[in-house]
Amino acid sequence: MPAHDFPLPVVLLIVFGSAKLMGELFVKLRQPALVGEILAGAVIGPSVLGWIAPNDTLKALSDLGVMFLLFDVGLQVKAKELLRVGGTATLVATVGVIVPFFAGWGIMLAWGAPQYEAVFVGASLVATSVGITASALSARGLLHEVASQIILAAAVIDDVLGLIVLAVVSSVATGHVNFLEITLTAGLATAFTVILAKWGTSAVNRVLPHFHTRAEAEDAQFHLSLILLFALSAMAIYTGVAAIVGAFLAGLALSETADRRVRDLTRGVNELLVPFFLVGIGLHLDLAVFRTPATLTLALVILAAAIVTKLIGCGLGAVSLGWNNETWQNMLKIGLGMVPRGEVGMVVAQMGLSMKVISTEVYAVVVFMAVATTLVTPLLLKIAFRSPVLEPAQV
Amino acid sequence: MPAHDFPLPVVLLIVFGSAKLMGELFVKLRQPALVGEILAGAVIGPSVLGWIAPNDTLKALSDLGVMFLLFDVGLQVKAKELLRVGGTATLVATVGVIVPFFAGWGIMLAWGAPQYEAVFVGASLVATSVGITASALSARGLLHEVASQIILAAAVIDDVLGLIVLAVVSSVATGHVNFLEITLTAGLATAFTVILAKWGTSAVNRVLPHFHTRAEAEDAQFHLSLILLFALSAMAIYTGVAAIVGAFLAGLALSETADRRVRDLTRGVNELLVPFFLVGIGLHLDLAVFRTPATLTLALVILAAAIVTKLIGCGLGAVSLGWNNETWQNMLKIGLGMVPRGEVGMVVAQMGLSMKVISTEVYAVVVFMAVATTLVTPLLLKIAFRSPVLEPAQV
Repeated sequence: MPAHDFPLPVVLLIVFGSAKLMGELFVKLRQPALVGEILAGAVIGPSVLGWIAPNDTLKALSDLGVMFLLFDVGLQVKAKELLRVGGTATLVATVGVIVPFFAGWGIMLAWGAPQYEAVFVGASLVATSVGITASALSARGLLHEVASQIILAAAVIDDVLGLIVLAVVSSVATGHVNFLEITLTAGLATAFTVILAKWGTSAVNRVLPHFHTRAEAEDAQFHLSLILLFALSAMAIYTGVAAIVGAFLAGLALSETADRRVRDLTRGVNELLVPFFLVGIGLHLDLAVFRTPATLTLALVILAAAIVTKLIGCGLGAVSLGWNNETWQNMLKIGLGMVPRGEVGMVVAQMGLSMKVISTEVYAVVVFMAVATTLVTPLLLKIAFRSPVLEPAQV
Repeated sequence: MPAHDFPLPVVLLIVFGSAKLMGELFVKLRQPALVGEILAGAVIGPSVLGWIAPNDTLKALSDLGVMFLLFDVGLQVKAKELLRVGGTATLVATVGVIVPFFAGWGIMLAWGAPQYEAVFVGASLVATSVGITASALSARGLLHEVASQIILAAAVIDDVLGLIVLAVVSSVATGHVNFLEITLTAGLATAFTVILAKWGTSAVNRVLPHFHTRAEAEDAQFHLSLILLFALSAMAIYTGVAAIVGAFLAGLALSETADRRVRDLTRGVNELLVPFFLVGIGLHLDLAVFRTPATLTLALVILAAAIVTKLIGCGLGAVSLGWNNETWQNMLKIGLGMVPRGEVGMVVAQMGLSMKVISTEVYAVVVFMAVATTLVTPLLLKIAFRSPVLEPAQV
């Protein structure tokens, strides 16, 4: 579908304006603003009004937006607290990867799909979009709950596991399985993440003050923070994990040294760019799945599987927290927090499409699942985290 | 020249990191940081290292950066103060358009260039890049000097005049001179600018509070400010003036209502994006002019004319301020402030190139002039605005 070729300010006005309008509407309805912003993308996108279509510039603004979102979340969390829940988070991530993968695979085989296609759909169900959950938790001021910290840590581990699954799956699909390479990739990604989470903060605490005392330009601390953000995001890509994992680790490393000014300036960038990330997800909503009853059925089955398997898989992982009267609620929160697939699921589907192992029909099903899990999660999280102190909260 | 196809975070790291590194170096040398940032673009660009080449994404970040730069400058200035110097600014802009145009035209004819090419080079000497001057003045805290306000107002008027010159020149080049259309364009652009400068602030003062009291989302005032910024930038384009004129008028309209929080959040966006504007100018530096002595001579003559004609033309316009012991210095400041051509000169040259009325050699000459005037101005401004209170100032 051809979209209008508007000049940049018009695109900015449509994307940002519609996001904030829908966000405000959802806040008025006591619903999470970010769901409104994603829906704004669906409305202005190719499926409905057709004013805006995904393009390189919007992609860059969206990527930058989610990097800053995770950076900001990292700034608000202490690495120590995440490492304390590391064991539980690893279990949550691992079970939460295995269950959805096999469920997706099984469903596709039962539906009569070829082996490789089934494997790719399984892989697309693996990875959580930490951006959506982080945004919802951050907007409600819940980042310091134990459940939130487990979700964040698990989502980062989940990204590393997703990378390994994807490496295995695509090498199987192309017929060249290089175990050495896969092991190396996995090792590098794990080392990068663990080293930065463990020693990033203390390294920054030690090194940064030297730069600060020497830098003469105004707001030099903010510039140094951004350089660290871009450097770790770039390194993340070369070690194989997502750029946003690097962005999160950069925020984490700076969480003890960043002053009020750095946080305020970061917030300014976020307020501008995060809507581009949210709208960007909505833009991809493809109503093609509604064209035939068979595809629609498959889409709904996959969507249900996507929600239930993460809920159960990650919830089970959380049992290791020990048993008390909050256990059930924590399992629910953690399970739900890991549900959104967002842009990560779409990337896997896109890869499958370009490798010609999944059909355009199945691609539409996966994208539908990715967007729908993302829309549903903030609504469900709002219920799971409902607490008398925070109501009526703005998510 | 093919540039590397780096992933986004790597591009961000190279552009932002090199800008801040060179900026810091220039501050240490007691020189304007922004000259360092533009030079960073020249160093990483196709002319020297070839790491980064201009592309759509960088163009979008640069356009967004200069929009926010002018928005921020508008926030710091009162419309009333600009209107007070409106008469002088109009004179400054008008004489400052006529003198460079005829100088450029004459030089090219004397050099043996065809008529249309000479006209286009003249037109490329007309428009001032208000972004560079505004950035230099803003960084030194000089926006409230009378000379600065005349520069800002004159630069906006200059943009409207430049639009008219360009409309005339391109219609002459294509052979279809439609006077009605040109008059209409001029009228629309003038009406847009004058109406917003005159009544924008009071309209915003009256209307915005209603939205504020109703909006429930956090930082709603910032969101509304950005929506106004994008809306006026978009309208500016449709009325024919540059998006940044709309951005400046949006800042101006909000200058009485914007609170500390809005200014801080805007500053955050600026700190991230303005380097992309500055580096973007440096990226275009084309050393092709140094290839033959003849081209180099022409480039230096055009550069000298670009500086001297604005200096004299705009300086003369400033005589209307009346004669006192500061007149000479104000003439110098205002004349210098109008020298940088930056991206505006490049746009005219690009248009001439795509209409095939200027050669690639002359294109390189104009781009060289545009970049060089931009590099030289902050250095000269620093001398002209030298004051004991501010030294050693960081520009």
